[in-house]
Amino acid sequence: MENLWTENLRNIEPYVPGEQSAETDIVKINANENPYPPSPKVAEVIKNFDADKLRLYPNANATPLKQALADYYNVDIKNVFVGNGSDDVIAIVFQSVFNSNLPIVYPDLTYSFYPVWCSLFNIKYKTYPVDENFRIHVEDYKEKNGGVIIPNPNAPTSIGEDLEFVERLMEYNQDSVVVIDEAYVDFGGISSVELTKKYENLLVTGTFSKSRSLAGLRIGFAIGSEKLISVLEAVKNSYNSYTVDSLSIAAGRASILDNEYFKSTCQKIINTRTRVTNDMRALGFKVLDSSTNFIFATKDDLCMKDLFAYLKTKKVFIRYFSVPRIENYVRISIGTDEEMDIFLKEVKGYLKV
Amino acid sequence: MENLWTENLRNIEPYVPGEQSAETDIVKINANENPYPPSPKVAEVIKNFDADKLRLYPNANATPLKQALADYYNVDIKNVFVGNGSDDVIAIVFQSVFNSNLPIVYPDLTYSFYPVWCSLFNIKYKTYPVDENFRIHVEDYKEKNGGVIIPNPNAPTSIGEDLEFVERLMEYNQDSVVVIDEAYVDFGGISSVELTKKYENLLVTGTFSKSRSLAGLRIGFAIGSEKLISVLEAVKNSYNSYTVDSLSIAAGRASILDNEYFKSTCQKIINTRTRVTNDMRALGFKVLDSSTNFIFATKDDLCMKDLFAYLKTKKVFIRYFSVPRIENYVRISIGTDEEMDIFLKEVKGYLKV
Repeated sequence: MENLWTENLRNIEPYVPGEQSAETDIVKINANENPYPPSPKVAEVIKNFDADKLRLYPNANATPLKQALADYYNVDIKNVFVGNGSDDVIAIVFQSVFNSNLPIVYPDLTYSFYPVWCSLFNIKYKTYPVDENFRIHVEDYKEKNGGVIIPNPNAPTSIGEDLEFVERLMEYNQDSVVVIDEAYVDFGGISSVELTKKYENLLVTGTFSKSRSLAGLRIGFAIGSEKLISVLEAVKNSYNSYTVDSLSIAAGRASILDNEYFKSTCQKIINTRTRVTNDMRALGFKVLDSSTNFIFATKDDLCMKDLFAYLKTKKVFIRYFSVPRIENYVRISIGTDEEMDIFLKEVKGYLKV
Repeated sequence: MENLWTENLRNIEPYVPGEQSAETDIVKINANENPYPPSPKVAEVIKNFDADKLRLYPNANATPLKQALADYYNVDIKNVFVGNGSDDVIAIVFQSVFNSNLPIVYPDLTYSFYPVWCSLFNIKYKTYPVDENFRIHVEDYKEKNGGVIIPNPNAPTSIGEDLEFVERLMEYNQDSVVVIDEAYVDFGGISSVELTKKYENLLVTGTFSKSRSLAGLRIGFAIGSEKLISVLEAVKNSYNSYTVDSLSIAAGRASILDNEYFKSTCQKIINTRTRVTNDMRALGFKVLDSSTNFIFATKDDLCMKDLFAYLKTKKVFIRYFSVPRIENYVRISIGTDEEMDIFLKEVKGYLKV
């Protein structure tokens, strides 16, 4: 028999990432990227980086980056974990702390990578549907489970929950690890980082890709008890000792230290989001209340998939998910005011108003 | 009962990476780092990199880097996989193509991460001891297995095997995937990349960390059949869509394009290695014939662990492994001629010659 070796290959359905385009004159509001550049301090650090040092392995503990995060979040460096983007961090979280025979649980409208990691690492899971307003019901999460992961704010719904929600989640889940994925928290969400001091089984993850305009550098992190972080470190060091490279350590640190720039770009995006939300509602769209750098919208009398396709012909790229319950919604990342004006103009053109 | 949640934590023995020192006036020849800086073209690319672009996700297929590798190795881009250092690449290889109920096999003196990955991913393994001269016997690898991985040249022995060895390995292993880990091949080893065109089940991995002086940037790669590469891509895209960041893609490409610089630094290291090998043999050391950027050495009448500890007090850092059979060997990375002169001077001081 031929090609017996192919039987040893892992059979994984390839995950298809969001569309990328080689065109440069497009309005790219389809990947929740930040329309503003990273802090000028980041550019400076890269420009002045001594490339000769790249011959050496990075700092094995990524100390300069971790210490900046620890200071920023008012925790000890032993409460900080960093990785190659928050996808790397969360993949390690799945392998490290969801090591149970019970299924892990998460909402059924959520980040599409969770089931992918469950499949990759053979982790059982169960989902609780969000309600007709796309809200998560914390009471659903009372059942015994192998772990909980909830993005707050949630994606692609854009809806944020408050700390009372998280406190109740912790009350119901004292026997498993609870992960709050805060990829979008800096755009008006409420962070649970302070609660990690109260709950040893609570882990909060974050990313530099959205609010810090560093998607191209791949930096993610987690904050939690020393117990949780040490398990993540052990698994990470068994996988790849150096996941964050020397340039990313230096540039990431520079980003954290420039808090003024950070706050001002986040605020600009929040302001633009408010304006675009109002404009779209005035056009008859239903726009969910967003705590993120994107909005999730629909219109009763409109096929959103057609709108998505039409906008593409006008070089405006938004995101459409062919997923039950949200097949008539689109996700629109918040760009600059100029980009959103083009978007709104094309939407009006399509609606002929 | 308290802290039931801790039962869901993965219990992994943390891997301890090689020693790092904050001191700067040391001779650091303990981590197989390249003593020469990366190509000046790399420094140029970093200096001129438009940091504003970092707000966007990297090219999802790392095309500029993959295409440079494809051209360099005379293969199609579909035969190239890249990752966040070769540890990331090999970890994905373990998860992707060693998916068998039979144990995978490798030599018992080899890269210390292989058993770590087997433990992390629950892969059974079996080792075949190298002989008294630290040579791998290809005849050992005739038994049915779930996959084969062999570094060529091997580490920490420094010994390289020829293409006849690999051809026989392929002949004996038509029903499993064979991985040749070529981390050190550019220092005089013989690459099996050409054989990947002949054997669809052969995968060759490589790294930019040693010969390309880019340990700090984390770039690894694999070359193989479209079939094998597509499985690696599917698993990688299920783990983390963007493992190689935008700066690394650009800098790695610049490194590949500057072939003249690459060849000249590799040759310098080979020349220094030859000189140091001869000097040490003249001092009575047994030094294995190296095809790598390090040498593996012992001396019958000397405790190598003591020599290692002594050199450390002289700020010369070499590597000692507390591992059966090689507990009286040390691994010495090849530094600049100046660094190796200091090393040799201190060795002579210790020997009082």
